[in-house]
Amino acid sequence: MKKMALALSGILTFGATGVVMADQYEEAIDYRQSAFTLVKGNLGPMGAMVKGEAPFDAAAFQRHAENLAALSAMTGDGFIEGSDLGDTKARAEVWEKRAEFDGKMNDFRKAAADLAAAAKSGDLATIKGPFAAAAKSCKSCHDDFKSK
Amino acid sequence: MKKMALALSGILTFGATGVVMADQYEEAIDYRQSAFTLVKGNLGPMGAMVKGEAPFDAAAFQRHAENLAALSAMTGDGFIEGSDLGDTKARAEVWEKRAEFDGKMNDFRKAAADLAAAAKSGDLATIKGPFAAAAKSCKSCHDDFKSK
Repeated sequence: MKKMALALSGILTFGATGVVMADQYEEAIDYRQSAFTLVKGNLGPMGAMVKGEAPFDAAAFQRHAENLAALSAMTGDGFIEGSDLGDTKARAEVWEKRAEFDGKMNDFRKAAADLAAAAKSGDLATIKGPFAAAAKSCKSCHDDFKSK
Repeated sequence: MKKMALALSGILTFGATGVVMADQYEEAIDYRQSAFTLVKGNLGPMGAMVKGEAPFDAAAFQRHAENLAALSAMTGDGFIEGSDLGDTKARAEVWEKRAEFDGKMNDFRKAAADLAAAAKSGDLATIKGPFAAAAKSCKSCHDDFKSK
Protein backbone atom coordinates (compact mmCIF):
# COMPACT_ATOMS: atom_id res chain seq x y z
CA MET A 1 0.00 0.00 0.00
CA LYS A 2 2.74 2.40 0.94
CA LYS A 3 4.60 1.78 -2.28
CA MET A 4 1.43 2.41 -4.23
CA ALA A 5 0.85 5.62 -2.36
CA LEU A 6 4.42 6.71 -3.06
CA ALA A 7 4.09 5.81 -6.73
CA LEU A 8 0.88 7.75 -6.92
CA SER A 9 2.37 10.74 -5.19
CA GLY A 10 5.24 10.41 -7.67
CA ILE A 11 2.82 10.64 -10.57
CA LEU A 12 1.04 13.59 -9.07
CA THR A 13 4.33 15.34 -8.38
CA PHE A 14 5.50 14.49 -11.85
CA GLY A 15 2.67 16.56 -13.27
CA ALA A 16 3.91 19.59 -11.38
CA THR A 17 7.72 19.45 -11.32
CA GLY A 18 8.34 16.06 -12.90
CA VAL A 19 11.79 16.49 -14.36
CA VAL A 20 13.33 18.00 -11.28
CA MET A 21 11.86 15.29 -9.04
CA ALA A 22 13.02 12.45 -11.30
CA ASP A 23 16.52 13.96 -11.34
CA GLN A 24 16.43 14.21 -7.57
CA TYR A 25 15.71 10.48 -7.20
CA GLU A 26 18.42 9.54 -9.67
CA GLU A 27 20.89 11.79 -7.90
CA ALA A 28 19.97 10.26 -4.53
CA ILE A 29 20.48 6.74 -5.88
CA ASP A 30 23.77 7.75 -7.49
CA TYR A 31 24.90 9.36 -4.23
CA ARG A 32 24.24 6.34 -2.05
CA GLN A 33 25.69 3.89 -4.58
CA SER A 34 28.83 6.02 -4.78
CA ALA A 35 29.10 6.01 -1.00
CA PHE A 36 28.90 2.20 -0.94
CA THR A 37 31.48 1.94 -3.74
CA LEU A 38 33.89 3.90 -1.54
CA VAL A 39 32.95 1.81 1.50
CA LYS A 40 33.80 -1.33 -0.45
CA GLY A 41 36.99 0.24 -1.78
CA ASN A 42 38.18 0.87 1.77
CA LEU A 43 36.85 -2.32 3.39
CA GLY A 44 38.51 -4.49 0.73
CA PRO A 45 42.15 -3.62 1.50
CA MET A 46 41.47 -3.83 5.26
CA GLY A 47 39.87 -7.26 4.82
CA ALA A 48 42.86 -8.46 2.83
CA MET A 49 45.19 -7.39 5.65
CA VAL A 50 43.03 -8.95 8.35
CA LYS A 51 42.87 -12.23 6.41
CA GLY A 52 46.61 -12.20 5.81
CA GLU A 53 46.14 -11.94 2.04
CA ALA A 54 48.10 -8.68 2.04
CA PRO A 55 50.93 -7.55 4.32
CA PHE A 56 49.72 -5.49 7.29
CA ASP A 57 50.42 -1.79 6.80
CA ALA A 58 49.33 0.02 9.95
CA ALA A 59 49.31 3.50 8.37
CA ALA A 60 47.33 2.36 5.33
CA PHE A 61 44.89 0.47 7.55
CA GLN A 62 44.36 3.53 9.71
CA ARG A 63 43.68 5.69 6.68
CA HIS A 64 41.13 3.21 5.30
CA ALA A 65 39.46 2.97 8.70
CA GLU A 66 39.21 6.77 8.96
CA ASN A 67 37.78 6.93 5.45
CA LEU A 68 35.23 4.28 6.41
CA ALA A 69 34.21 6.20 9.53
CA ALA A 70 33.68 9.35 7.45
CA LEU A 71 31.76 7.45 4.77
CA SER A 72 29.50 5.81 7.37
CA ALA A 73 28.08 9.30 7.96
CA MET A 74 27.14 9.54 4.28
CA THR A 75 25.77 6.10 3.38
CA GLY A 76 22.30 6.75 4.76
CA ASP A 77 21.78 10.14 3.12
CA GLY A 78 20.72 9.00 -0.33
CA PHE A 79 17.74 6.92 0.81
CA ILE A 80 15.26 9.74 0.38
CA GLU A 81 11.54 9.09 0.29
CA GLY A 82 10.47 8.12 -3.22
CA SER A 83 13.87 6.80 -4.32
CA ASP A 84 12.80 3.16 -4.02
CA LEU A 85 12.21 2.95 -7.76
CA GLY A 86 14.86 3.07 -10.45
CA ASP A 87 18.26 1.43 -10.79
CA THR A 88 18.67 0.36 -7.17
CA LYS A 89 19.14 -2.79 -5.11
CA ALA A 90 17.50 -1.16 -2.11
CA ARG A 91 14.44 -3.17 -1.09
CA ALA A 92 11.08 -1.60 -0.28
CA GLU A 93 11.76 -2.54 3.36
CA VAL A 94 14.16 0.44 3.62
CA TRP A 95 11.14 2.73 3.52
CA GLU A 96 8.61 0.33 5.03
CA LYS A 97 10.76 -0.35 8.12
CA ARG A 98 12.55 2.97 8.21
CA ALA A 99 13.32 3.01 11.95
CA GLU A 100 14.92 -0.42 11.72
CA PHE A 101 16.95 0.63 8.68
CA ASP A 102 18.10 3.85 10.34
CA GLY A 103 19.06 1.79 13.41
CA LYS A 104 21.27 -0.46 11.32
CA MET A 105 22.88 2.56 9.64
CA ASN A 106 23.55 3.92 13.11
CA ASP A 107 25.08 0.57 14.17
CA PHE A 108 27.35 0.84 11.14
CA ARG A 109 28.45 4.34 12.14
CA LYS A 110 29.31 3.11 15.63
CA ALA A 111 31.14 0.04 14.31
CA ALA A 112 33.15 2.16 11.86
CA ALA A 113 34.06 4.65 14.60
CA ASP A 114 35.18 1.77 16.85
CA LEU A 115 37.30 0.37 14.02
CA ALA A 116 38.92 3.76 13.38
CA ALA A 117 39.72 4.03 17.10
CA ALA A 118 41.20 0.51 17.16
CA ALA A 119 43.22 1.18 14.00
CA LYS A 120 45.13 3.91 15.84
CA SER A 121 46.75 1.17 17.93
CA GLY A 122 48.61 -0.04 14.85
CA ASP A 123 48.17 -3.55 16.27
CA LEU A 124 46.54 -6.15 14.04
CA ALA A 125 45.36 -8.29 16.98
CA THR A 126 43.54 -5.27 18.46
CA ILE A 127 42.00 -4.44 15.08
CA LYS A 128 40.60 -7.87 14.18
CA GLY A 129 37.57 -7.82 16.50
CA PRO A 130 36.35 -4.33 15.54
CA PHE A 131 36.94 -5.12 11.86
CA ALA A 132 34.80 -8.27 12.11
CA ALA A 133 32.10 -6.25 13.90
CA ALA A 134 32.08 -3.63 11.14
CA ALA A 135 31.88 -6.28 8.41
CA LYS A 136 29.08 -8.02 10.32
CA SER A 137 27.21 -4.71 10.53
CA CYS A 138 27.36 -4.39 6.72
CA LYS A 139 26.09 -7.93 6.21
CA SER A 140 23.28 -7.53 8.73
CA CYS A 141 21.85 -4.59 6.81
CA HIS A 142 22.37 -6.20 3.38
CA ASP A 143 20.52 -9.33 4.55
CA ASP A 144 17.40 -7.36 5.42
CA PHE A 145 17.44 -4.39 3.08
CA LYS A 146 19.41 -5.16 -0.09
CA SER A 147 18.36 -7.26 -3.07
CA LYS A 148 20.75 -9.97 -4.23
CA MET B 1 55.56 8.41 -25.49
CA LYS B 2 54.65 7.77 -21.88
CA LYS B 3 51.12 6.80 -22.83
CA MET B 4 52.53 4.37 -25.38
CA ALA B 5 54.86 2.88 -22.80
CA LEU B 6 51.98 2.52 -20.34
CA ALA B 7 49.78 0.92 -22.96
CA LEU B 8 52.57 -1.43 -23.86
CA SER B 9 53.19 -2.33 -20.26
CA GLY B 10 49.44 -2.86 -19.99
CA ILE B 11 49.54 -5.31 -22.83
CA LEU B 12 52.53 -7.10 -21.37
CA THR B 13 50.86 -7.28 -17.96
CA PHE B 14 47.68 -8.42 -19.60
CA GLY B 15 49.50 -11.49 -20.82
CA ALA B 16 50.39 -12.41 -17.24
CA THR B 17 47.44 -11.44 -15.05
CA GLY B 18 45.22 -9.66 -17.56
CA VAL B 19 41.79 -10.07 -16.01
CA VAL B 20 42.85 -9.00 -12.56
CA MET B 21 44.67 -5.96 -13.89
CA ALA B 22 41.76 -4.85 -16.08
CA ASP B 23 39.45 -5.17 -13.07
CA GLN B 24 41.88 -3.15 -11.01
CA TYR B 25 41.78 -0.24 -13.49
CA GLU B 26 37.99 -0.35 -13.68
CA GLU B 27 37.75 -0.40 -9.91
CA ALA B 28 40.13 2.54 -9.63
CA ILE B 29 38.08 4.57 -12.12
CA ASP B 30 34.85 3.61 -10.33
CA TYR B 31 36.38 4.59 -6.99
CA ARG B 32 37.50 8.04 -8.06
CA GLN B 33 34.26 8.77 -9.95
CA SER B 34 32.28 7.77 -6.86
CA ALA B 35 34.41 10.09 -4.74
CA PHE B 36 33.68 12.99 -7.10
CA THR B 37 29.95 12.15 -7.14
CA LEU B 38 29.96 12.54 -3.35
CA VAL B 39 32.04 15.72 -3.59
CA LYS B 40 29.45 17.17 -5.96
CA GLY B 41 26.59 15.94 -3.75
CA ASN B 42 28.04 17.85 -0.80
CA LEU B 43 29.26 20.93 -2.67
CA GLY B 44 25.87 21.41 -4.32
CA PRO B 45 23.81 22.09 -1.18
CA MET B 46 26.57 24.31 0.23
CA GLY B 47 26.68 26.29 -3.00
CA ALA B 48 22.92 26.76 -2.93
CA MET B 49 23.14 28.16 0.59
CA VAL B 50 26.06 30.47 -0.26
CA LYS B 51 24.20 31.78 -3.31
CA GLY B 52 21.01 32.28 -1.31
CA GLU B 53 19.11 29.74 -3.41
CA ALA B 54 18.42 27.70 -0.27
CA PRO B 55 17.97 28.87 3.33
CA PHE B 56 21.20 28.78 5.34
CA ASP B 57 21.25 25.81 7.73
CA ALA B 58 24.44 26.03 9.79
CA ALA B 59 24.33 22.41 11.01
CA ALA B 60 23.68 20.99 7.55
CA PHE B 61 26.41 23.20 6.08
CA GLN B 62 28.87 22.01 8.71
CA ARG B 63 28.05 18.38 7.99
CA HIS B 64 28.53 18.86 4.23
CA ALA B 65 31.82 20.68 4.86
CA GLU B 66 33.07 17.84 7.08
CA ASN B 67 32.04 15.30 4.46
CA LEU B 68 33.93 17.30 1.85
CA ALA B 69 37.07 17.43 3.99
CA ALA B 70 36.94 13.64 4.45
CA LEU B 71 36.28 13.07 0.75
CA SER B 72 39.18 15.31 -0.24
CA ALA B 73 41.46 12.65 1.27
CA MET B 74 39.97 10.04 -1.10
CA THR B 75 39.62 11.82 -4.45
CA GLY B 76 43.25 11.31 -5.44
CA ASP B 77 43.43 7.61 -4.61
CA GLY B 78 41.84 6.18 -7.73
CA PHE B 79 44.28 7.75 -10.19
CA ILE B 80 46.56 4.75 -10.27
CA GLU B 81 49.15 4.31 -12.96
CA GLY B 82 47.57 2.69 -16.02
CA SER B 83 44.03 3.86 -15.31
CA ASP B 84 44.15 6.58 -17.98
CA LEU B 85 42.27 4.37 -20.42
CA GLY B 86 38.64 3.28 -20.10
CA ASP B 87 35.48 5.17 -19.19
CA THR B 88 37.12 8.24 -17.70
CA LYS B 89 37.26 11.98 -18.22
CA ALA B 90 40.73 12.14 -16.69
CA ARG B 91 43.17 13.58 -19.21
CA ALA B 92 46.56 12.05 -19.91
CA GLU B 93 48.06 15.09 -18.17
CA VAL B 94 47.14 13.54 -14.79
CA TRP B 95 49.90 11.01 -15.33
CA GLU B 96 52.14 13.14 -17.54
CA LYS B 97 52.25 16.02 -15.02
CA ARG B 98 51.74 13.96 -11.89
CA ALA B 99 53.49 16.30 -9.46
CA GLU B 100 51.32 19.21 -10.64
CA PHE B 101 48.17 17.07 -10.35
CA ASP B 102 49.09 15.86 -6.87
CA GLY B 103 49.79 19.47 -5.90
CA LYS B 104 46.29 20.49 -6.97
CA MET B 105 44.77 17.58 -5.06
CA ASN B 106 46.71 18.76 -2.04
CA ASP B 107 45.42 22.32 -2.55
CA PHE B 108 41.90 20.85 -2.58
CA ARG B 109 42.52 19.03 0.71
CA LYS B 110 43.74 22.27 2.31
CA ALA B 111 40.81 24.27 0.94
CA ALA B 112 38.30 21.66 2.15
CA ALA B 113 39.90 21.61 5.61
CA ASP B 114 39.75 25.41 5.73
CA LEU B 115 36.09 25.31 4.75
CA ALA B 116 35.27 22.72 7.42
CA ALA B 117 37.02 24.91 10.01
CA ALA B 118 35.11 28.00 8.85
CA ALA B 119 31.81 26.09 8.85
CA LYS B 120 32.16 25.55 12.59
CA SER B 121 31.56 29.27 13.04
CA GLY B 122 28.00 28.80 11.85
CA ASP B 123 28.33 32.23 10.24
CA LEU B 124 27.57 32.52 6.52
CA ALA B 125 29.73 35.63 6.07
CA THR B 126 32.73 33.76 7.53
CA ILE B 127 32.04 30.75 5.32
CA LYS B 128 31.70 32.51 1.95
CA GLY B 129 35.42 33.12 1.35
CA PRO B 130 36.59 29.59 2.17
CA PHE B 131 33.69 28.16 0.13
CA ALA B 132 34.71 30.20 -2.91
CA ALA B 133 38.32 29.07 -2.44
CA ALA B 134 37.28 25.41 -2.33
CA ALA B 135 35.13 25.76 -5.44
CA LYS B 136 37.99 27.57 -7.19
CA SER B 137 40.31 24.71 -6.27
CA CYS B 138 37.95 22.23 -7.97
CA LYS B 139 37.75 24.35 -11.11
CA SER B 140 41.50 24.87 -11.29
CA CYS B 141 42.10 21.11 -11.41
CA HIS B 142 39.21 20.44 -13.83
CA ASP B 143 40.57 23.11 -16.22
CA ASP B 144 43.91 21.36 -16.51
CA PHE B 145 43.16 17.69 -15.95
CA LYS B 146 39.55 16.87 -16.85
CA SER B 147 38.03 16.46 -20.31
CA LYS B 148 34.86 18.40 -21.06
